Amino acid sequence: MKKFINEVEQVENQMIQGMVKAYPAYLRKLDCGNVVVRSEKKEHKVALISGGGSGHEPAHGGYVGKGMLDAAVAGPVFTSPTPDQVYEGIKAVATDAGVLMVIKNYTGDVMNFEMAGEMAGDEDIPVRQVIVNDDVAVKDSLYTVGRRGVAGTVFVHKIAGALAETGADLDAVAGVAQKVIDNVRTMGAAIRPCTIPAAGKPGFELAENEMEVGIGIHGEPGTHREEIRTADEITDMLLGQILADIDYTGSEVAVMINGAGATPLMELYIINNRVADVLAEKGIRVYKTFVGEYMTSIEMEGFSISLLKLDDQLKELLDAPADTPAFKA
Amino acid sequence: MKKFINEVEQVENQMIQGMVKAYPAYLRKLDCGNVVVRSEKKEHKVALISGGGSGHEPAHGGYVGKGMLDAAVAGPVFTSPTPDQVYEGIKAVATDAGVLMVIKNYTGDVMNFEMAGEMAGDEDIPVRQVIVNDDVAVKDSLYTVGRRGVAGTVFVHKIAGALAETGADLDAVAGVAQKVIDNVRTMGAAIRPCTIPAAGKPGFELAENEMEVGIGIHGEPGTHREEIRTADEITDMLLGQILADIDYTGSEVAVMINGAGATPLMELYIINNRVADVLAEKGIRVYKTFVGEYMTSIEMEGFSISLLKLDDQLKELLDAPADTPAFKA
Repeated sequence: MKKFINEVEQVENQMIQGMVKAYPAYLRKLDCGNVVVRSEKKEHKVALISGGGSGHEPAHGGYVGKGMLDAAVAGPVFTSPTPDQVYEGIKAVATDAGVLMVIKNYTGDVMNFEMAGEMAGDEDIPVRQVIVNDDVAVKDSLYTVGRRGVAGTVFVHKIAGALAETGADLDAVAGVAQKVIDNVRTMGAAIRPCTIPAAGKPGFELAENEMEVGIGIHGEPGTHREEIRTADEITDMLLGQILADIDYTGSEVAVMINGAGATPLMELYIINNRVADVLAEKGIRVYKTFVGEYMTSIEMEGFSISLLKLDDQLKELLDAPADTPAFKA
Repeated sequence: MKKFINEVEQVENQMIQGMVKAYPAYLRKLDCGNVVVRSEKKEHKVALISGGGSGHEPAHGGYVGKGMLDAAVAGPVFTSPTPDQVYEGIKAVATDAGVLMVIKNYTGDVMNFEMAGEMAGDEDIPVRQVIVNDDVAVKDSLYTVGRRGVAGTVFVHKIAGALAETGADLDAVAGVAQKVIDNVRTMGAAIRPCTIPAAGKPGFELAENEMEVGIGIHGEPGTHREEIRTADEITDMLLGQILADIDYTGSEVAVMINGAGATPLMELYIINNRVADVLAEKGIRVYKTFVGEYMTSIEMEGFSISLLKLDDQLKELLDAPADTPAFKA
C-alpha cells in the first residue's frame, strides 16, 4: 500500500486535524472525536448535520459553513460514526429551530444516525432526518437495503442548507431536502479501485482492460464488470440509466460530474462534454454544471454523473450564497 | 493505458469543450484553437493571460474569470501552445491598459509566449511578462534552464489578477506579479507517475516502496528517488528545503498543499496537519491555507507544498473577490 500517511490508526484523526488547521475561520473540531462544526454557531436556524465514514473528502467536513452544513461527523474510513459521536454533533449545533440529519442510505449510517436522533429527542431536541438514495445502479447492495446515497447528497447539503439559512422552519427544510432527494439520480463507474488504509489492499481488482460499472462510494465492487470503452460510450451508458429512472423531458437540470478521487479533471471535462451534448440533444436544459471532486472514495479512479431536476425554488436555493471550505457560491 | 478518454487526438479539444460547456457564464472558447477567455470581456483593465501545456487542470482555464485571468491558452498535454495561439489570446483580451503574460518557466513556454508578445508588440499592444520559477527542487531540469514554474503560479494569477481588477496600470500589475514570484517557493514529491495520453505509458516507473522527490509538473522524474517514508517525514523534507531557500522567520505566509491529480484529499489534509505544526513551531504565522488540486499533472499521485511570504498588500489582494470556475474568494 502506497499512501502519504503516517500510522494507519491515525489517518482519520490527522486528516480532520489537518482540515481544521487549514480552515480555522470555518471549522472547529469538538473535543469528543472527529466531529467538525462551524467555527461560529449560528442560532435560531435549523441546524444541518451530516457525515458518515471518512474517505469521501471533501465530504462532509468541507461542506460545513454558511449556507450548507452546521456539523459533519466522520467515522473511520468507510465506516459509520457511532451514535454517541453523532449525538455530540447534534448537541453542539442544535438550536431552538431544531436539527435536520442528512443521512446517506447505508445500513450502518442509517442505524447510528437514527439512534443519535432518538437520544437527542429524549433531550427534547427536535430532530428530523432525510435519507439520500440517489444511486440508480442497484436496488440492494452489500451494505445497504435499497438504493445507496452517493454524490447527489451534496445537492441536498447545498439546497437544504440555503433554505435553513433563511430561517425557514424544520418542516420546510426537511421538505426541500426530500424534494432534492426525489429529484436527483446518480450513477458511476471506475477503472481503478481504492485501498482502505486499515485493509492495506484494494477492495477489488480489475484487469488492464476492465472497468467496474455501478460503483458505490465505499470501495465496494459495482453491479458488474465490463471491458473498458470510450469515455463517450461509458457516459452514454450511465446517463441512459439515469434518464430511464425519472422523466427529465423538458426539464432544467443541475449536472454534477463527480471525480472519485484519482480521476484527472481533464477526463471529467471530457465526460461533461458528452453529457452536455446528450442532454442538449434530448431537450433537457442544463441550468448549472459542477465538475470536480465532491464525494470521493479515497483514490478510486472513477466518476459519477448526477442529474438534479430543478424547479424555481431549487434553482434559487442552488444559487444562494454558500461559503464553506469546499463549496462556494 | 486506462483512461476515460475517446480518441487520443481529441483529448485536449474535448477537454476544453467540456470545460466551456460546464461554465458558459464564465468562459468562451475562441474559434482559433484551445484558447478560453472570459465570457464577457472587461475593458480598461490590464488583461492577464497565462497557459502552457494541457494536463494541469484546473490550470489554467479554470482560473479565467473576475479577479484572476482574462485568457488561458492550452497546448497539447505537457507541450507549449504555439506563438500563434498565444497571440490570438492576447488579441482577444487586450485593452488600452495592456496585457500581462504570466509564464511558467519551461523553455518551450517562455520561447512561445515571448514570440507572441513580440507579435503583439508589433501591433502596438503593450505587453509585459513575468516568469514564474517557484520550484526549489532543481536549478536546471530536462525541460528548463533555471528553476521550474509550478503550483506557485496560482498565487500569481490570484494576486496580480486582483490588482488588475482595481484598474491598476501595467507596471503595477507586473510589479506585484513579480513580488509574488520573489516570495513564493514550492517543492513536491510523487509516489505514482502519470501517463501522457499520446505516449500511452508512464513517464517513469517506481517500485512499490519508492517515491520520486523534487517532481515537476510535466510527468518528468524529479531530482532523485528514495524509499517512501511517512507523510510527516516527507513533509519535513520538502518543507525544509523550502524554508532553507528564503527567510520566512517571523513572516506571515499563505500555504498551498497542491494535489498532483490522483492524491486523495485525505492525504493532503494529513500533510497540512504536519505543515501547520512545523510552521507554528518555527513562529511562521499561517494567514491562509489552500488544500486541493490547483496545478495537476494528469493522474500523478503526488503533492507539492508552496509557501508565499505575505505583506499587507499581498494579503489584501489574496483576500480580494475572485469568481472563476476553479477559484472563488
